[in-house]
Amino acid sequence: MTNVAVLGVGMHPFGKFENKHIKDLANTAIWNAIEDSGINAREIEAAFVGNCLGGILLGQESVRGQVIMRHAGFKGIPIVNVENACATASTAFRMAWMSVKSGLYDVALAVGVEKMFIGNTAKSIEALTTATDIEVCGNMGLQFTSLYAMNIRKKMDKYGWTKEDLALVAEKNSYNGSLNPYAQFKKPLSKEAVLSSKMIADPITLYMASPMGDGAAAAIICNEKYAKKLSSKPMIRVAASELSSGQASMLESKPTESTTYITVQNAYKQAGIGPEDIDLAEVHDAMSPAELKLYEELGLCAEGEAISLIREGRTKITGDIPVNPSGGLASRGHPVGATGLAQIAEVVWQLRGEAGKRQIKGKNGKLPRFGLTQNDGGYVEGDQAATAVHILSRI
Amino acid sequence: MTNVAVLGVGMHPFGKFENKHIKDLANTAIWNAIEDSGINAREIEAAFVGNCLGGILLGQESVRGQVIMRHAGFKGIPIVNVENACATASTAFRMAWMSVKSGLYDVALAVGVEKMFIGNTAKSIEALTTATDIEVCGNMGLQFTSLYAMNIRKKMDKYGWTKEDLALVAEKNSYNGSLNPYAQFKKPLSKEAVLSSKMIADPITLYMASPMGDGAAAAIICNEKYAKKLSSKPMIRVAASELSSGQASMLESKPTESTTYITVQNAYKQAGIGPEDIDLAEVHDAMSPAELKLYEELGLCAEGEAISLIREGRTKITGDIPVNPSGGLASRGHPVGATGLAQIAEVVWQLRGEAGKRQIKGKNGKLPRFGLTQNDGGYVEGDQAATAVHILSRI
Repeated sequence: MTNVAVLGVGMHPFGKFENKHIKDLANTAIWNAIEDSGINAREIEAAFVGNCLGGILLGQESVRGQVIMRHAGFKGIPIVNVENACATASTAFRMAWMSVKSGLYDVALAVGVEKMFIGNTAKSIEALTTATDIEVCGNMGLQFTSLYAMNIRKKMDKYGWTKEDLALVAEKNSYNGSLNPYAQFKKPLSKEAVLSSKMIADPITLYMASPMGDGAAAAIICNEKYAKKLSSKPMIRVAASELSSGQASMLESKPTESTTYITVQNAYKQAGIGPEDIDLAEVHDAMSPAELKLYEELGLCAEGEAISLIREGRTKITGDIPVNPSGGLASRGHPVGATGLAQIAEVVWQLRGEAGKRQIKGKNGKLPRFGLTQNDGGYVEGDQAATAVHILSRI
Repeated sequence: MTNVAVLGVGMHPFGKFENKHIKDLANTAIWNAIEDSGINAREIEAAFVGNCLGGILLGQESVRGQVIMRHAGFKGIPIVNVENACATASTAFRMAWMSVKSGLYDVALAVGVEKMFIGNTAKSIEALTTATDIEVCGNMGLQFTSLYAMNIRKKMDKYGWTKEDLALVAEKNSYNGSLNPYAQFKKPLSKEAVLSSKMIADPITLYMASPMGDGAAAAIICNEKYAKKLSSKPMIRVAASELSSGQASMLESKPTESTTYITVQNAYKQAGIGPEDIDLAEVHDAMSPAELKLYEELGLCAEGEAISLIREGRTKITGDIPVNPSGGLASRGHPVGATGLAQIAEVVWQLRGEAGKRQIKGKNGKLPRFGLTQNDGGYVEGDQAATAVHILSRI
C-alpha cells in the first residue's frame, strides 16, 4: 500500500480581480504551493488541472490546463483536465492522489482555478446553471440558492432551527474569514447584520450566500517514501479520499440517507477512524445554513443536534470541533473550480500549526491531527452530482 | 503489479446525426460496451467521461458525465469528467485504467462522446480553435489544417514525399472505412479522386481531412484477477498507457524529436516490447498525410522510409503492418471527444478476430497479438498539448 502525502499547498486570494487573467490566478497558487512544499519544481511529474466554467465564461475549453501550466513555466509534463462542478478541485486532487497511489508518478500537482468576474454577471449566473442538466433544470433558471432554501426550510420545520441559528453560522464564518488573508470577505458580521441583509431566497439572506469569485488553489502530492527525500516539511498524509455521485436526493430528510453521509462513512473506514477523531472540518456551505445539516451528515453530532453545536459555539475556532476555520464558502469565497483545494490548503495549514490568528487546537490542546474536507458539486435529477470527502492526518 | 484488461468496447456509429442528442450517442456506446463485455452493468464502480466541446457547443459544462450517465441509467457511481482536446477519450481511458491499477476499483467505465453537428458550422469550427490557447492562436483562427499543412510541406521537401503519396493514405483508409459499419464515410476513394477534391490547405485536399462528426465510444476496464470471474471474453491486456504534453513542437523535423516518439518509446518500455512486435496501429491522422510521419515516429520504419511503406502497400489491412484498419480519423470520423476510445475499440476487435471484412492477420498468419493506439490533442505555443499512446495485447 502506497501512502501519499501533501507536501505543499498554495492559493491565490479569493475575490474580485477584474484585471487578472485566469492564468495569473493559477500561476500564483501553483508557485505558492511549490514554495510551500520546498521541492524543486522539476520534481513535478504530472498535473491535474480543475476548472469548471472556463468554456462558457472565457471561451477556453479542450486544453485549459495546458494553457495554464505553460504560462506557469511548465513544459513536457502530462496534463489532465478535470471538471466536476463545485467539486472540481477536490476531484483534481483525488486524481493526482490516485496517480501517485497507482505508482505512476512520485510527485503530482493538483490545481483548481476559476475566473467568474468577467464583467457580465448574467452570463456568470447562467454558467452556474450548467452544474445541472441544462435541459431539465438549467434552462429553467433553477439556481442552487432555491434548492438550498427548500432544503433548509424542511430542516427548520423538522428540527426547530430558527432564523437566528442560520445567522449564527454566517456570523461565525465571517469572523473566521476576517482572520484569513486569502478570504474574499474580511469583515466580521453580526447575527443581526446577517439577518437584516437582503433576502435572496427565504430564509437565505445575502450574507449567508457564497459570492461569485476569482481565485485558485493548488497542492503538491507525493509518494511518502519519496517525500522524505524531497522536503523537510511536516508530512500530511491523505488518510482517505472518496468521491460519490448521485447517491441521494439533495432534498433528503434524514442525515443518514444523504450523499455526504454515505461518502464520509467510506472515508472514515478508509482512514480507520471515526467522526470523534476529527479535529476540524472544512465543509461546503455554499449557503451558510447548509453547514448545520453537514454537522449531522458528517457524524459530528447526532440527528437534530446541529443547533446545539452552533448555539454553544462548539464549531467556532475556539470550540472543540471547529468547522470552516477558513471562513467557508460564504466568507473565504467560492470560485467554483478552486474551492476544493482551498479546503485542502486550510486543513494542511491547520494541521501544521500555520494558520495564524485562526489556528485551532487539537483534542489534546496541542496541534490538531485529523482534518476533513467535504466538497459538493452540482445536481442531476435532484441528486448531488458529486461529493468529495478527504481526510488528512499529521504523521 | 495489478494487470488491467479491457473487457468490452462499444461505439455509436460516427457521422452526422442531427436528430440525436449527445446523451443518446453516449448511451448507445456505453450499453454496447457492456453487452460486449458480458458483465452485469451493476459491476461498474466508476465512470470517467470524456467530452471536449460540450461547454461551448451545447452549453453543458460542469456535470457533463453525470447528465450522460444518468440518462444511460446509472445512479450512485462516482463520475469524473475529463477533457484533453482531441486526446480526450484516450485520457478518459487512461484515468479509468489508472483507477483500476491503483486498486480503487475493480471495474471502471471509460466513455468519450462528442456532438459537433449543431446546425451552426461556424460555431463548431470556432469551438475547435479552443484546442489551443485561444488568446495566442485560437482567436487568430489558426486551425489545425494549416498547421498540418505546414508540417507536411516540410516533410515533402525533406523526404521527397509527393502529392500522390499523400493521396495513397486517404485511398487506403477510405477503403478500410468502407468495411467498417461504424465509419462516417463508407465510400472507397481513388487516389485520383482524393487529389482532385477541393484544396483545403495546400497540399491537403478535402478528402484528406477528417470531418466534423457526432459519435461516441466506450470501454469496460477491469482488474485481470476479477475479470476471469466476470467475463468469458478473450482477455485484452492494457500492456502500456502513456500520456505526454508539450514534449516538442508540432513543426519538429526529426521523427525522434517528436512528442509521439518520446511517448511511444515509454510505452514500448512499459509493455516490454519494441515496434517490431506491433501487429497493427490506430493513429491520429486528423489529416491523412500525417499518417506518414507517424510511421516514422512510432518506429514502424526508419526515418525517410514512410513513403516506401505506403507505396508498397505494407500498411494496408493485407500488409505486414496494417495502420488505421478502422479507416482512421478521415474515414471512420473524428468526433473529437470520442476518437481515442474508437481507436481502442478497433484494436480490441482486431485482437479478438472480430473485425469482419477488415480483419487483419498477425505476424504468424493468425490473430494479431499487439495493437497500438496513438491519439493527439491540441497544441499550446506550437507544442502538442496531449499525446496518448496505448498498447493492448491479447493474452
